[in-house]
Amino acid sequence: MPTLYHHPMSAASRFVRLMLNEYDLQTDLAEERTWERRRDFLALNPAATLPVYVDDSLHAVCGASVIAEFIDEIYGVFKRDRRLLPDESFERAEVRRLIEWFLVKMEQDVTRHLMRERVFKLVMPKEAGGGAPDSKALRAARANIRQHMRYLDWLAANRDWLAGDTMSYADLAAAGALSTLDYLGEITWSETPNAKDWYQRIKSRPSMRPLLADRVAKVTPVSHYADLDF
Amino acid sequence: MPTLYHHPMSAASRFVRLMLNEYDLQTDLAEERTWERRRDFLALNPAATLPVYVDDSLHAVCGASVIAEFIDEIYGVFKRDRRLLPDESFERAEVRRLIEWFLVKMEQDVTRHLMRERVFKLVMPKEAGGGAPDSKALRAARANIRQHMRYLDWLAANRDWLAGDTMSYADLAAAGALSTLDYLGEITWSETPNAKDWYQRIKSRPSMRPLLADRVAKVTPVSHYADLDF
Repeated sequence: MPTLYHHPMSAASRFVRLMLNEYDLQTDLAEERTWERRRDFLALNPAATLPVYVDDSLHAVCGASVIAEFIDEIYGVFKRDRRLLPDESFERAEVRRLIEWFLVKMEQDVTRHLMRERVFKLVMPKEAGGGAPDSKALRAARANIRQHMRYLDWLAANRDWLAGDTMSYADLAAAGALSTLDYLGEITWSETPNAKDWYQRIKSRPSMRPLLADRVAKVTPVSHYADLDF
Repeated sequence: MPTLYHHPMSAASRFVRLMLNEYDLQTDLAEERTWERRRDFLALNPAATLPVYVDDSLHAVCGASVIAEFIDEIYGVFKRDRRLLPDESFERAEVRRLIEWFLVKMEQDVTRHLMRERVFKLVMPKEAGGGAPDSKALRAARANIRQHMRYLDWLAANRDWLAGDTMSYADLAAAGALSTLDYLGEITWSETPNAKDWYQRIKSRPSMRPLLADRVAKVTPVSHYADLDF
């Protein structure tokens, strides 16, 4: 069975878990603490980033968007109306733009900082950067959330799904990021009703269930984290 | 004719110019100063990043790796042995991993900082962050270059081209990043002979010529910048 190296609080890892679940692809999940810089893991992915997908032939595929293309080429292309990447090139470009938006831009502006300060520093040893959260980093990330939520709200108001008429990788990438932030209670859903409506639809999908059952050491999720009505 | 919004010192823009040149695709080049946050440009790409490719139907395709996939789907797929993305899925994944390595990881570790401190701050107004370079940022970026050069040297020593037996997008992404750093004289080629040999081969390609003729305001390129023998 293939293995997915992941972390429950990695937005990019969640994106890949969602696509595997949507396509009913079974994988072993291996939790990786990238700050430990484990030799065997660096041999798989010298960039030391998550996720990494290792298939039955033991080939490693590194990084969420690379895995997304790989899974589409191997499996998605046969899924017809369940395919998560459209057939038309401009529509594909829009899906890919949004994957990058939620997993690169939002990661740099928001997600990475909140995860580091509120989750990873609690379990990282001091030498690796563990310790008390940096309140300046938290403030900056929280200021950026509102901009991202406004854009998500605009997308959700103007389209059936984030990239167009059908559910796509764009929705799963956004759900990967949003669900980690929601775990920490960082999202004020009442301010963005269209985004909330979209998240409610995504959240009720069976593919989301395993993610809503995730728990991480020393951080309790916000009370509504797994509620479909929030 | 399509338009490519770019900047001569943007590694990602250079990657796309190289692929367009390799495929003999004509485009108008429009230089964009992203820090000006021009309304019309933000309407094309709300992420305010370069490059953006606008085709004859005025559809915008945003971001280097998204453009790379788009160009491959529309043109590359018909290029047979000149195609810059391989046919086989694991080989494609390796090319994509390296695009990300040179244009996301190296950008974050090295390129972005050196360009901001040494090029953009000279022409940005003070309100946008212009001014004297930050010597701490320069030092950190320069420490990271060596690691990246060592990895590039390892790839060049072990493979004909960076991702395998044939030239691919991986080589062009690396050349995009390396050529901006080389413009600034930030690379000590003598330390990495295999990387140097690889760069010599890439540099002699006709697709590189327009990039080697680039000049930016207030920064003279290093004397060997356009020399094929360096």
